[in-house]
Amino acid sequence: MPCMTHTDNPPEIATTPLPTLTLAKGHSKRLRAGHPWVFSNEIEMTAETRLLPPGGLVSLIDAGGERLGIATFNPHSLISVRLLSRDPTQKIDRAFLSARLSAALTLRQALFPRPFYRLVHSEADGLPGLVVDRFGDVLAVQTNTAGMERLLPDLLAVFDDLLSPRAVVLVNDSPARIHEGLQPEHRVVAGAIDGPVELEENGCRFVADLQEGQKTGWFYDQRDNRAAVARVAPGRRVLDVYTYAGGFAVQAAVAGAREVIAIDRSEISLALAAQAAKLNEVAVETVRAESFAEMERLAAAGERFGVVVVDPPAFVKSRKDLGAGAKGYRKMTRLAAALVEPGGFLFCASCSHHMPVEAFALETARGLQQAGRSGRIIRSAGASSDHPVHPWLPESAYLKALMYQLD
Amino acid sequence: MPCMTHTDNPPEIATTPLPTLTLAKGHSKRLRAGHPWVFSNEIEMTAETRLLPPGGLVSLIDAGGERLGIATFNPHSLISVRLLSRDPTQKIDRAFLSARLSAALTLRQALFPRPFYRLVHSEADGLPGLVVDRFGDVLAVQTNTAGMERLLPDLLAVFDDLLSPRAVVLVNDSPARIHEGLQPEHRVVAGAIDGPVELEENGCRFVADLQEGQKTGWFYDQRDNRAAVARVAPGRRVLDVYTYAGGFAVQAAVAGAREVIAIDRSEISLALAAQAAKLNEVAVETVRAESFAEMERLAAAGERFGVVVVDPPAFVKSRKDLGAGAKGYRKMTRLAAALVEPGGFLFCASCSHHMPVEAFALETARGLQQAGRSGRIIRSAGASSDHPVHPWLPESAYLKALMYQLD
Repeated sequence: MPCMTHTDNPPEIATTPLPTLTLAKGHSKRLRAGHPWVFSNEIEMTAETRLLPPGGLVSLIDAGGERLGIATFNPHSLISVRLLSRDPTQKIDRAFLSARLSAALTLRQALFPRPFYRLVHSEADGLPGLVVDRFGDVLAVQTNTAGMERLLPDLLAVFDDLLSPRAVVLVNDSPARIHEGLQPEHRVVAGAIDGPVELEENGCRFVADLQEGQKTGWFYDQRDNRAAVARVAPGRRVLDVYTYAGGFAVQAAVAGAREVIAIDRSEISLALAAQAAKLNEVAVETVRAESFAEMERLAAAGERFGVVVVDPPAFVKSRKDLGAGAKGYRKMTRLAAALVEPGGFLFCASCSHHMPVEAFALETARGLQQAGRSGRIIRSAGASSDHPVHPWLPESAYLKALMYQLD
Repeated sequence: MPCMTHTDNPPEIATTPLPTLTLAKGHSKRLRAGHPWVFSNEIEMTAETRLLPPGGLVSLIDAGGERLGIATFNPHSLISVRLLSRDPTQKIDRAFLSARLSAALTLRQALFPRPFYRLVHSEADGLPGLVVDRFGDVLAVQTNTAGMERLLPDLLAVFDDLLSPRAVVLVNDSPARIHEGLQPEHRVVAGAIDGPVELEENGCRFVADLQEGQKTGWFYDQRDNRAAVARVAPGRRVLDVYTYAGGFAVQAAVAGAREVIAIDRSEISLALAAQAAKLNEVAVETVRAESFAEMERLAAAGERFGVVVVDPPAFVKSRKDLGAGAKGYRKMTRLAAALVEPGGFLFCASCSHHMPVEAFALETARGLQQAGRSGRIIRSAGASSDHPVHPWLPESAYLKALMYQLD
């Protein structure tokens, strides 16, 4: 990692005592039970605490003075406190970060034979706000909290120690950063890349564009779902709506689909999908179109498929969008169901944090009904196991996927 | 199927017009939306309807006289009406049953390479109350409603046509039958079997005892979860609590576990597990013991495992057991977590219909906390895809499984 510019001992992990942050009386119970957050209204907010640097480390104590652990603190965020360690004597230094990263790496190495996965998934890996996707020797990094942003120089040093990456790309496009007072930032912070990077998933090859692609360039969260779709693809005609970089489409083609059509509105995405098809020596027809309009056109033209995949970007970006987003998922399912031949399969997904799993199931059931179709759910799943969930943050399991077989 | 004794045209599928059943005003909406049930308080219950034979076929109409479809009706059950077809002219004859069974079979054949699966899963396969598990040429059948009980002779004829089974075993031990006014019944109704039957799952061989075993002899619902546990088993010491017929234990051993210990309170179950280990040429140590006591003993003895599986029988058998059952899952998780080495895996399951998935997640999280352990959920799953879920009966997804990795 030759281009790294961090200093060896930045101030936030110096040995001076940490500022103390006091929880308001009666507000330590959830944290003690295992939850990793404290909200801004649960803190004794003094003039001093308000002046603490966003994302700085603090020593957390309860109203009675008992020490609860070490956390990052952002006085400007609703989720003000994110616990790093319950050991009040824990130093948050490179050794600490290295231990957490090593544990995350060991888990992935136990789960996956090849170095292509989400390496760090925030709170669930004990590193709140940090997301790292691994593409062999290239890392795509998100620091979604002010706390992780401050620790970035040390994290880069630890990446270097553990993995010697050829390049590290900061893909800080997440809207979550706004709540932390952080600006978007998308750049190569270490090493260099010269175009899209290659990755493997379920034995297939793909390309991710970390510089111009959406989010972190590849959505590893659908790995198991793509495998499940591929299992029913052999001999069938497959439509992949919102194909992005061709994940579902190419894996279905490799599994032996009779024909695969992939739709996306983005030329860049379709180019990635086409490149992946070529790498795997399969045929995928790419169609640039708006998804809803194209599904309507295909239905009107009498086109039918043995498998239809609809894996859209989040329709519900905030709580106030829930009504409109729910209707969107219903309509999406209605349009897609009309394209499924009798006995065929419909895979629907939602990556909206704010769409509860029951609501998604209900809206897709309504969509089927509106399309005049009946069927059964043969798979109900979340993200793959490299996207672990913190036991006390079940709501962070944002991905919901349902596979229906239709009559 | 040489021993079959059904007549060619039993009265319930004769051509005489079906009795009409009228929904109370304002109660057709849920059914029209896609739901397959009508509750007893939603029916115009007349003296005549009360006298209809339990499980007989009816033509369902709404308060305005519109025909809604054909259903089975049990005047003595809370779930009185179970819809078979939305086509009011549909004859419920062998051709109808054959079409539904063929569709169920086609789905399983698309999903699984070998003839070992749940072939029919009740409402989700359009055959409310019917459950059929397939063990190659042996079928284990449950008729959990009076409606399916009446159709059994025709179902047997259709099984014969479609699959020519060597034997059909009626395993009517489900407590659900009580609500339908049906008695338990466990017998070979066609052909003959001479001891446990063999089956395959995830490439491993097992034996199911359909005559003396629990329920239907084998729980195919855990197929994918057993594969997930097997993936993390290589090189690890594995403890399978409530092993029953050795499903998790043997698959972990075959995957390359360093050592496998399987616990059950039943000698019969342990004999099946031992037989499976032998068939697959792996070593599994079987221990006859009460699960909680044995977990406490192992913890006190300082025993630790890389993988612990706890897949108990239902702790919550009815809604009133929810409190006690929830505590049971918490304690189970606490005891099991204490046996997991740092970095190891804990797989917990609940097959209690009445235990909501969120409550199960919460109780296991509390159990971890009580054991002083932290970790992450790396898998949250239900039953395998041969146990489909009706889109309007999401609560029928009874199986909940969580795999944790612990720090």
